[in-house]
Parts: sequence; structure tokens; C-alpha cells
Amino acid sequence: MSEVYAVRRTRLRECCNAGGSAAALVSRPANVRYLAGAAPEGAVLLLGGTEDLLVCAGPPDDRSPQSRPDDSLRVHVVPRGGGDAAVAAADLAAGQGVDSLAVEEHHLTVTRHRAIRDVAPRLRLAGVGCAVEQLRIVKDEEEISCLRIGAEITDQALGELLESILVGRTERHLALELERRLVDHGADGPAFPTSVATGPNAGRPGHRPTDRRVEEGDFLSVCLGATYRGYRCEIGRTFVIGTAPADWQIELYELVFSAQRAGRESLVPGAACRDVDRAARHVLDSAGYAEALPELTGHGVGLEIDEDPQLTPSAMGKLDACVPVTVEPGVHLPGRGGVRIDDTLVVRPEADGGPELLTITTKELLAL
Amino acid sequence: MSEVYAVRRTRLRECCNAGGSAAALVSRPANVRYLAGAAPEGAVLLLGGTEDLLVCAGPPDDRSPQSRPDDSLRVHVVPRGGGDAAVAAADLAAGQGVDSLAVEEHHLTVTRHRAIRDVAPRLRLAGVGCAVEQLRIVKDEEEISCLRIGAEITDQALGELLESILVGRTERHLALELERRLVDHGADGPAFPTSVATGPNAGRPGHRPTDRRVEEGDFLSVCLGATYRGYRCEIGRTFVIGTAPADWQIELYELVFSAQRAGRESLVPGAACRDVDRAARHVLDSAGYAEALPELTGHGVGLEIDEDPQLTPSAMGKLDACVPVTVEPGVHLPGRGGVRIDDTLVVRPEADGGPELLTITTKELLAL
Repeated sequence: MSEVYAVRRTRLRECCNAGGSAAALVSRPANVRYLAGAAPEGAVLLLGGTEDLLVCAGPPDDRSPQSRPDDSLRVHVVPRGGGDAAVAAADLAAGQGVDSLAVEEHHLTVTRHRAIRDVAPRLRLAGVGCAVEQLRIVKDEEEISCLRIGAEITDQALGELLESILVGRTERHLALELERRLVDHGADGPAFPTSVATGPNAGRPGHRPTDRRVEEGDFLSVCLGATYRGYRCEIGRTFVIGTAPADWQIELYELVFSAQRAGRESLVPGAACRDVDRAARHVLDSAGYAEALPELTGHGVGLEIDEDPQLTPSAMGKLDACVPVTVEPGVHLPGRGGVRIDDTLVVRPEADGGPELLTITTKELLAL
Repeated sequence: MSEVYAVRRTRLRECCNAGGSAAALVSRPANVRYLAGAAPEGAVLLLGGTEDLLVCAGPPDDRSPQSRPDDSLRVHVVPRGGGDAAVAAADLAAGQGVDSLAVEEHHLTVTRHRAIRDVAPRLRLAGVGCAVEQLRIVKDEEEISCLRIGAEITDQALGELLESILVGRTERHLALELERRLVDHGADGPAFPTSVATGPNAGRPGHRPTDRRVEEGDFLSVCLGATYRGYRCEIGRTFVIGTAPADWQIELYELVFSAQRAGRESLVPGAACRDVDRAARHVLDSAGYAEALPELTGHGVGLEIDEDPQLTPSAMGKLDACVPVTVEPGVHLPGRGGVRIDDTLVVRPEADGGPELLTITTKELLAL
């Protein structure tokens, strides 16, 4: 794996050099992990003049065994009481004779940025922009394989929940149970706080589980995902509790299902992100739900659960092959509940079979 | 409760005015919650020229029912696609005729700070420092009551675990089980990721649970805490698995216990933070464990799990009454394991009975 990280660092170094900076300081944890293979707490990566260095805030003993950095990378531990690793890294860069350092201005606070300037006043600080986030958008097969395993784990956890008795249990308990099952099946942990929403809460994006209990006749919507080797996926499904769904439930479900299918089917390399959004959104808009719609109908996933690209009406840019995204339209009707259907898919050329669906739990409307 | 928040905002406004700023922009979530009673995702608080305003990034529908802000506070929702609430708030402040705005430079990124400057170029931006964090150190009885309930929940969760069979179960499973029990007993959620460490991992500060299984003869150390109404507490205990602890285990346990007791007993109003640290550390130092010691032996708790004051050798400042802190010395011997004992206590004058122990699970060495 070592080579992968070295290649990624070379690509970033080329970006920086093109921008006129000899060196870069990467501080955002997911970016550090992407380039170094691990991100011990507080660690930063110095892409240096003379060599690359993972600068760690604490002694190696504080790091968990999971977070072993790439072997080809030298590790520098800031001595006890030595403070912020970013400041220490800037000091080291200045000592290496670097005169210009590109930093992640969207991650460093004003206070840390000032401390860097103070420790190395001759160092010219530039911005590296979201260069690492841009590199992260297109995944290699190793990364996609981690997402695929994470999705399998997620499908298993959800499948087991569906076999258990749901009526009378609270949203909180169901959420905790799903998270326990994710870990049981080998996840590092949940990819984000699991959402379980019942009755009038169903379909609310980002709903946090409450003490409301599942009742007969409810819509039940769940959204969960596993983290596997750092990679995060997402699935969302909506079910009906009881013997038979009501007519309005069937209608709403079929509508959201059509919207989600339209989104999925428009995932081709070269498609504009806003067109994918529009494909899904149009179905709901035409049915009169323009107001009830969320701001986005999907987003990239990877080392973070919400990455670029964003699938929104104002999104710029196009989809490439090997970009994993969610497609997750939904409708929430205040006081009544609603439906969300959410998959993680990888954009693939039509010649390779089109979009690869990672989360394969059925999207039929199940009455549980 | 409304009055409490208004009084807190008045105190902050006085700080800002003394610093020459007519208005303040609070962006750090725990600080927003402290002053507004809630912190919807992405929301900021504008302590304005003409009035105070909670500026929210999303429509009210996106906010969970738990996060209702103080009634006396006007809520401004940034329209869809309107971007960053901090930038919108600065724009509003400029519109109110404010000429100088104190911001949280230790929380705002360089990029957000620049966006604020760009939207309101005539606004003079100053730093509010850690003024809100300073206000948060001394708790009122309402806050302490939340911590007390959280500690009760934590004791219950831990107590139940001790009654179950432990041998053969993995660190991960035990950690998940503890978190489930916290929620069962009424916690909002865990206060921080639960740590369960067995055998050679035992006693490592911040150890992340692995798939290692509990074995006979192991040290088992756990560290967990409940969040209750936003307030976070912490308990750490170490046990021995099996019928009888080995001599080295008893010796190490008694040593750490003595250090922890020395720390607890030195918690009096007016004590220097470094002296509390020294009291605990000295016991371990004299026994030859200087190298094995963590950087701190305790810290404040509240809306965040790690707040000021810090109990470290270089800490400045003194303890006041009504400051909740942890006392958590430990020793980890690489390859063998170790012991940590961790309580949450509230500093109280001797006349009131001295330090109030919130986490009351026994500190006898239990063989489980």
C-alpha cells in the first residue's frame, strides 16, 4: 500500500509546485489519512522541501494500533508540552529552508494560522485550497472495495433488524441496535449517527432518534452506514409498520422511488452533477412537492460521509467514473411523516454495466 | 431558564464592550449552546448592537426537536443556498450599524474569517478570545444537577456490566454494551467514545476498543460517561479478571489509588491547578513511574468533555468552587497493561463538605 500514498503525495506536491509553493502542510484529518495512511489525533503532514514528515502531537504510545502510518513516511513526534503539531511542522519547514508553505485555510483556525506565522515569520504562507479533497473524489479500486465491504456490512445489519419485532421499540433503541450490529459484522463503527424515524418523524433528513415508539401504521425510515477501513457508506430505506400500507403511503413511496430511480439512472461518467439532482428532483417537483424537498439529493462518500461532489441544483462540475455517491431524495410532510430512499453507488461507464449499486437491500415497500 | 441565558449573554457583552467591541459573533457550538440554550447545526449567535440573534444555517425543519433555543432570543434563518451562518451574521451586524465585531478566532477557519471580512469590509474584526470558555468554567447548580444525573446514569451502566459475564467478550462489544446501557438509563448519548481496554491495553489513556477478548488474569480498564441535557461526565475504573489478582496488580492498583486519592483530596477552592496535578503525580513519580505518566491528571467537564481547567504540571490558575473536574491518574506499562482510576468531582468549600464526588462506583479492586 505504501506506493499508493507516495503517489498521492506526489500528485499533491505537483499541485503545490504549480501554485508556487515548495511545501505543503496538510492538517485536515481525512486529508492526512488519505496521504499518510493514518491520522493520529492532532497529527499533520508536512510535504516538505527535503522530505515528507508526519508530525504527531503526542508520543507514539498515545496512538491506537489501527492508525499505523505509511512505512515510507518519517514520523516526527512533538516533545511533551511542545504544543500544536501544525506549528511544530511549520517550524521544521522553515528549518529545512522552505520559503513558501501552502496550508489548508479551510481547516486551520485564525489562531493556529497566526501561531504558524509567529513561529516562522519568514515563511510565506499560501493556501492549498481544497486540493486534497479534489484528489479524493475519484477512488481507486482498493478504496471502492472498502466501500463495497462497508455496504455489505450495512445491508446485513439492516436485514437482521427487519427480521426482529419492531412495534413498541423506541427510535433510540433501534438506532443503537443497528450500530451494534454494524460492529458485530466487522465495521470500524457507524459512518455517521444512525437515524431512525417513526410516524411523523419518518422521512425527515438527519432526524435524530427520540424516545418515540414504533406504532402500527407508521412509516419507519432508517438511515445508517458502516465505516470500513476508514471508508463510509450510507443506506436509507423506508418501511410501513403493520399488515397493509395506506393508499397515501403507497403513493408517496412510489413517487420517491421513481425519483430515486431517475437519479440512479442518470449516474453516468460525464453527467453534470446538477443534472443528476434535477433528474431526481423533477419527479417530486412535478408531483407538487417542490417545497418539501431537501437542498441536496446526493453527495460523494469516502473517508468522510459528506464529500464532493454535491448533487444540488447549483452544483458545478461533472461526474467521473469511479466516483461513489449517494442518491437520496425524500419527501417529508409535516405532521404526517414521509419517505426517503438512499443508496450508495459508484459511477461506472455503460460498457462496464453502468452505475454499481453497493447497497443492495430491497427497495420494495415492505410492510413489517 | 430563559433568564439564565440572557444573564450569560449580558456577561459576555460586558467582556466585549470592555474590549472595545460593540458586538460579538459566537460560532463554537458548545459556546452557542451555553448562551442560546441550543446549537442547531451550523448556527451562530450574534450578540448584536440592537438585539441578539441566533442565526441558523438551515430551515427550522432541519433542527431536531431537542434543540429549542431560548425563547427570548430571535431566530434568523439564512435562506436556502444563503451559505455560512457566520457570514450572514456579520452581514446583519454591519446592516445594524455595528462597526466592530469580536469573533472566535480559535474556532473560525482562515477561510470563514476571510469570507466575513469580504461580506462586511467596513466591519473591524477583533478577537473575543476564549471569553465564553472562561464563563463556562464555574457552573451553576442547574448545570451541576445535569452532571450529577449524568454520573448516576454512568454508575448504573457500569454497575450492570460488572454483573455480567466478561471473559471471552471483546473490548468492542463491551464498549457498545456500555453505550447502549447509558442510553437505556436516559442519557442523550455517550459523552465521548467509550474506552474498554484489556490485558496489555489496560490503563492506556484514550485506548480505542479492539477485537481483543477478555482473558483470565487480565486487568480490565473502562472509561465512559453519559451526556445528560448536553452535560458530559466521566468515570474510569480498573478491575481484575479471575479469582485473585496477582501481587504486581495489587501493588500497581494501590499506588494509582493513592495518587488518585491525593488528587481528589487537594480539590479545594483556591488550590492551584498545578498543585492538584502535583499531588496526584508526586505519588506515582516517587514510585518510579515518572515516564509512564500521562500529560494531565485531570480536566474540567461540562458541555464538552475536555474543558478548562487543565490539571497539568504547567497549568496556570486556581480552582474555584462549583468547578467540576476529573481526577484521573494512571500508569500504563507497555506489554503488561496498567491501571487508571477516574472520577468526576465538583470543587466545594470545606464548609460544604469538601469536593462532591459525582461518580460513586466503588474504587475497591474488584476481581470479576
